[in-house]
Amino acid sequence: SRSIDLAVIPGDGIGQEVVAEGLKVLSAVLPQDVKLETKDYDFGARRYHATGETLTEADLDALKQHDAILLGAIGDPSVPSGVLERGFLLKLRFAFDHHVNLRPSKLLPGVATPLAGQPEIDFVVVREGTEGPYTGNGGTIRKGTEHEVATEVSVNTAFGVERVVRDAFARAQARPRKKLTLVHKNNVLTFAGHLWTNTFSKVAAEYPDVTTDYIHVDAATIYLVTDPGRFDVIVTDNLFGDIITDLAAAVSGGIGVAASGNINPSRDFPSMFEPVHGSAPDIAGQGKADPTATVLSVALLLRHLGHDAEAARIEDAVSADLAERGGLPARSTSQIGDALAARVAG
Amino acid sequence: SRSIDLAVIPGDGIGQEVVAEGLKVLSAVLPQDVKLETKDYDFGARRYHATGETLTEADLDALKQHDAILLGAIGDPSVPSGVLERGFLLKLRFAFDHHVNLRPSKLLPGVATPLAGQPEIDFVVVREGTEGPYTGNGGTIRKGTEHEVATEVSVNTAFGVERVVRDAFARAQARPRKKLTLVHKNNVLTFAGHLWTNTFSKVAAEYPDVTTDYIHVDAATIYLVTDPGRFDVIVTDNLFGDIITDLAAAVSGGIGVAASGNINPSRDFPSMFEPVHGSAPDIAGQGKADPTATVLSVALLLRHLGHDAEAARIEDAVSADLAERGGLPARSTSQIGDALAARVAG
Ligand SMILES: CC(C)[C@H](C(=O)O)[C@@H](O)C(=O)O
Ligand SMILES: CC(C)[C@H](C(=O)O)[C@@H](O)C(=O)O
Repeated sequence: SRSIDLAVIPGDGIGQEVVAEGLKVLSAVLPQDVKLETKDYDFGARRYHATGETLTEADLDALKQHDAILLGAIGDPSVPSGVLERGFLLKLRFAFDHHVNLRPSKLLPGVATPLAGQPEIDFVVVREGTEGPYTGNGGTIRKGTEHEVATEVSVNTAFGVERVVRDAFARAQARPRKKLTLVHKNNVLTFAGHLWTNTFSKVAAEYPDVTTDYIHVDAATIYLVTDPGRFDVIVTDNLFGDIITDLAAAVSGGIGVAASGNINPSRDFPSMFEPVHGSAPDIAGQGKADPTATVLSVALLLRHLGHDAEAARIEDAVSADLAERGGLPARSTSQIGDALAARVAG
Repeated sequence: SRSIDLAVIPGDGIGQEVVAEGLKVLSAVLPQDVKLETKDYDFGARRYHATGETLTEADLDALKQHDAILLGAIGDPSVPSGVLERGFLLKLRFAFDHHVNLRPSKLLPGVATPLAGQPEIDFVVVREGTEGPYTGNGGTIRKGTEHEVATEVSVNTAFGVERVVRDAFARAQARPRKKLTLVHKNNVLTFAGHLWTNTFSKVAAEYPDVTTDYIHVDAATIYLVTDPGRFDVIVTDNLFGDIITDLAAAVSGGIGVAASGNINPSRDFPSMFEPVHGSAPDIAGQGKADPTATVLSVALLLRHLGHDAEAARIEDAVSADLAERGGLPARSTSQIGDALAARVAG
């Protein structure tokens, strides 16, 4: 489409700073004839403190009108743990049915990794986004007493598992190596494990050209540090995906360069793109935050909206920039954004 | 006590080989006047195929008579996933109330780590062993249909959380750095998270000399590869503990040297000690398996039974052996066992 109507949620901490650079690069990459409209939303800690609201029905109605959402980061130590996570981030993922949580991990030349050697890393995690232990099912009895019992219920449906497994197979098929790994813990979580494993085998039969394997989540963390090159596409549950994508980000250059998309492939609702990192209040307002993860999230956003050439231009600019950055003194948030904007415009 | 009555479960795959070396070192380290009695049990894949049994009430009664249990490894590809895990390993942990799952991680000199540099790593994970998502609560409806729903219920009780948190505080207090980190996901799993976080704060008040902090499990995987030296003692939930201890083993020398104890501190039931690795059927019977993890598990067993001097002798022997092993050609399972036995005897 020749116009992009974007909801922008800068959020808390470094969110503001990195989103500004993401938009700078987005404006620079778009051809003249693609009209970019953006609207800012003030979700996050400030609004919560001022009004007690995290995300209302009216907010959802407003967000729904946009083509996509760009988010910086949400979260602040002044807000009790869980309030913004459950009340905003997860509420939005669930309300807009963002069932494909897409998290690519690629170790780019010039980027430092905590791993010895310089292993080749280039895989994508497809994390389920609307089920598993994230549903908020569960509860507490006898709270605060010595007889308290708290439960958390992981909910897994054939519908929910199958659609994300299908999405992952399609992504694996479109990549050169065509390999898909299911990560779960089916030897202990046997109810959910059976559903995931069976669904995976069933869909695999429709993709004979995709190589498949299965790894327990605990073993997956070992491979991520000893042999990350073995992975091409991974599909996994919401919680396992949360855990292994932070590790994946760490080994492939850190959360400063890790992008993610909360995608609803049906496009009934706008998808949301955000860096994997949080609001990092300790370095907020100092111009120190690396906007690269946000810029790469903008690339995911563009690809989702069908602007593949522009997405590739951004990714190439980031690669070139990182390859050169090595020996240079550290740059500020906006210096990095300027450098990337200049590259994609050129 | 001046005698040790040990149940020995060699199990499957390399279990047989590594347990033999563990017992060799145990015999060598014990003073003449400590009588060692062992009884072998044939649990695992062979028995399951022959009889359909994994662990009967009679088995539990027999095991209960011993002072402790030494396990090699259980599991074989010929047995459907989950059968031996739920039917033997977890059944035993639950039956004997092994609520402290103790997993030390120490990067010893001469040991290769996948991490760049040679970071200092010396921490212990206290993993809860009898609750969380491991309880087997949950179920499936409409199995095999497109309307299947599978649930897994994480059960967390004040009783269960408090006892393991107390155990971890006591262990932290006994270590030079006196630092304890709670790992959970309390911003998403708010019911269980609240119970864990509140219990942790409450018990912390009784240990003013122990420094505490809290980290989300996803962030913990990042620190484990970028700054593992920040950890001293970690206390965590059963599933998070499963995941992060495999990662911890990987960064501190691999599962070839990772020991564990399934401990019931009350001693109402025997505790069980086992290497973190599995039965590794691909290398079984070839004399290639590294018995070091089993030998270190024997050290944990001795310490649990009050033989601290002997435990320390084994740990010192392992350190010395690993420090020397570097340039040498690979040794067989029994060569390593012989070398360690010679050191502890000397
Ligand atoms: C902040 C939190 C709710 C979130 C999650 O657990 O999904 C974050 O860790 C992430 O990975 O996007
Ligand atoms: C084999 C399996 C049941 C077990 C677990 O998940 O606890 C193993 O991974 C472990 O860590 O001891």
